[in-house]
Amino acid sequence: MPLDKSIFDHLSFGADGLIPAIIQSADSGRVLMMAWMNHESLSQSIELGETVFWSRSRQEFWHKGATSGNTQQIISIEADCDSDALLIRVRENGPACHTGTESCFDVQTIYLSSEEE
Amino acid sequence: MPLDKSIFDHLSFGADGLIPAIIQSADSGRVLMMAWMNHESLSQSIELGETVFWSRSRQEFWHKGATSGNTQQIISIEADCDSDALLIRVRENGPACHTGTESCFDVQTIYLSSEEE
Repeated sequence: MPLDKSIFDHLSFGADGLIPAIIQSADSGRVLMMAWMNHESLSQSIELGETVFWSRSRQEFWHKGATSGNTQQIISIEADCDSDALLIRVRENGPACHTGTESCFDVQTIYLSSEEE
Repeated sequence: MPLDKSIFDHLSFGADGLIPAIIQSADSGRVLMMAWMNHESLSQSIELGETVFWSRSRQEFWHKGATSGNTQQIISIEADCDSDALLIRVRENGPACHTGTESCFDVQTIYLSSEEE
């Protein structure tokens, strides 16, 4: 059955046609990365069942893991209360980050509260 | 000791001076919301130990919970591998969402894989 794209009609894509997508591991709960989707990459993601982003730097579709094999199988997609951000829970096949770490947020700590030090 | 703001110098704020901030509960692991920070609101967040955003709609600083009481105590701030997104783990005092739900992502499911249905 073809995808009914009207389910996206209420989403707020920005002036550049993009919406931020937060990718979270369904298994570990770790936030893996943040990337951008447009209407078409969101459609492709749902049809494929894997994350497809829009690369702002390369200005092209980016099927995550197409070359590395580190694809992300989509478990759920939720929009936030004002429909301008997506939370996508995935089952990941390998590290999310091109640096080889599980999460793109594993590399730079800007601040730790004294509670955590 | 005054905050050394040079720790932000390598962060990539967008053309609008903003960087997306993903807010995650340190206790439940739930992603609570996504909002935007500029250099100054990030500085204020660290100095205060609570999240302070830049409201794009109101074009003003937004100390989360200043009126509702639902503040977010910052546990850690991490930047991603290309320094253009922040992951902020918080201990939240009350629901993150103005609708009263724990997370702003509790309200709209766009897609569920058959695995989850």
